[in-house]
Amino acid sequence: MVKNYRLTIKYDGTRYNGWQRQGNTPDTVQGKIEDVLSIMCGVRTELAGSGRTDAGVHALGQVANFKADIDMNPEEVKAYLNKYLPEDIAVTAAEIVPERFHSRLNAKEKTYLYRIYTGSDKPVFERRYLFVPDAMERELNIPDMKLAAGYLIGEHDFKSFCGNKNMKKTTVRIIYSISFEEKPDELDIYFTGNGFLQNMVRIIAGTLLDVGRERIKPDDMQKILLEKDRRSAGGLAPARGLTLMEVRY
Amino acid sequence: MVKNYRLTIKYDGTRYNGWQRQGNTPDTVQGKIEDVLSIMCGVRTELAGSGRTDAGVHALGQVANFKADIDMNPEEVKAYLNKYLPEDIAVTAAEIVPERFHSRLNAKEKTYLYRIYTGSDKPVFERRYLFVPDAMERELNIPDMKLAAGYLIGEHDFKSFCGNKNMKKTTVRIIYSISFEEKPDELDIYFTGNGFLQNMVRIIAGTLLDVGRERIKPDDMQKILLEKDRRSAGGLAPARGLTLMEVRY
Repeated sequence: MVKNYRLTIKYDGTRYNGWQRQGNTPDTVQGKIEDVLSIMCGVRTELAGSGRTDAGVHALGQVANFKADIDMNPEEVKAYLNKYLPEDIAVTAAEIVPERFHSRLNAKEKTYLYRIYTGSDKPVFERRYLFVPDAMERELNIPDMKLAAGYLIGEHDFKSFCGNKNMKKTTVRIIYSISFEEKPDELDIYFTGNGFLQNMVRIIAGTLLDVGRERIKPDDMQKILLEKDRRSAGGLAPARGLTLMEVRY
Repeated sequence: MVKNYRLTIKYDGTRYNGWQRQGNTPDTVQGKIEDVLSIMCGVRTELAGSGRTDAGVHALGQVANFKADIDMNPEEVKAYLNKYLPEDIAVTAAEIVPERFHSRLNAKEKTYLYRIYTGSDKPVFERRYLFVPDAMERELNIPDMKLAAGYLIGEHDFKSFCGNKNMKKTTVRIIYSISFEEKPDELDIYFTGNGFLQNMVRIIAGTLLDVGRERIKPDDMQKILLEKDRRSAGGLAPARGLTLMEVRY
């Protein structure tokens, strides 16, 4: 009998061309997992993710599901995958879910974390998981960044923060919260919303960085939203600072 | 006037052939730093480290010194090096010390950390800095490991734990302490001594792992020490689990 397996996955995205399998592009996270799944199931098996992550972006709690007619319990599936997946991808949980469960269509809420290094050293051991600005650009006006972030909370058309110029579908999303955690050598920004457009978290992070460097005023955020033009927003923050933390259903 | 600069250095050893410059071997930590130093000083400049670290071993607190006739204060030296060194090597402190200071000859005590993953997942983000045993080999008898470690404390001839078969000089060293820290998914072992032979910490860690897996009995350690034969001790634990934490003077 065909069962629907749901996986929670973490990965170090450094060496991957993002989550999504794309033709012959080597080394995508989805592609790597599907290769192992297909051997495990004895038949080509597709894995549906909750959403794409860009090249170089990490995940602690990506969710995906696949359907297979196999005689394995979730613990066996998890152990098999962890044994044969490369060391930068791991399955942290596996369960059997109702047939109608779809990791992308049923996702209600996602949380991303953007990590910015603010210390005076070099973060040698964490460097793959942090954005490290030039030494001259690490002093950030965090109160201004918080003010700016406030304008983004709620339901808005985020077209100015969408990296896909040819986006045909709605660019309206809800951001539930943007919260800041100041650590000794690091600024962490958590973004929770009902969904995010292509590059959206990285463009928001890049714009907030421009606010922190006092190149954009906090209340310019309103104007940027209203202009619905990617060119109004700030830069695209580097992929390495971004981690998909959790998908909720 | 020639000044003697002391540096404290951290590095991710993953991609390096160890600390020591060796002829034309590319990518040693010492070689990388000397290349930048030599440009900074305008003349080929040698950097003396407190000791070698093996290929793949990391450091949080390696100490080294160099002599140069330059007009730069320690903060300028640190900033210059951090700007031009690759992102996996950083200078965390620089100071001017008396001319007679020598980072190797004056070192009194060193502390190394060996990190072993003991969880049931895969440590995706920390994998370069931990030894990850096969899933079947993660259950360790830690009380036995502590008993075994006890036999090594004090002044001993550590010939059985020396990786250099042709060692001409004394293999007597003093270990001041071996302490265990049990974390949720990790066992950390700290080694402090007056100096360590080639591969010594990794051979001790490998032998303690054999004790933890109940292949060697704790009180066999006495016999291993007395036999003064590398073949009596256990395996060489992987380099990635080892970090040089501190050198004291």
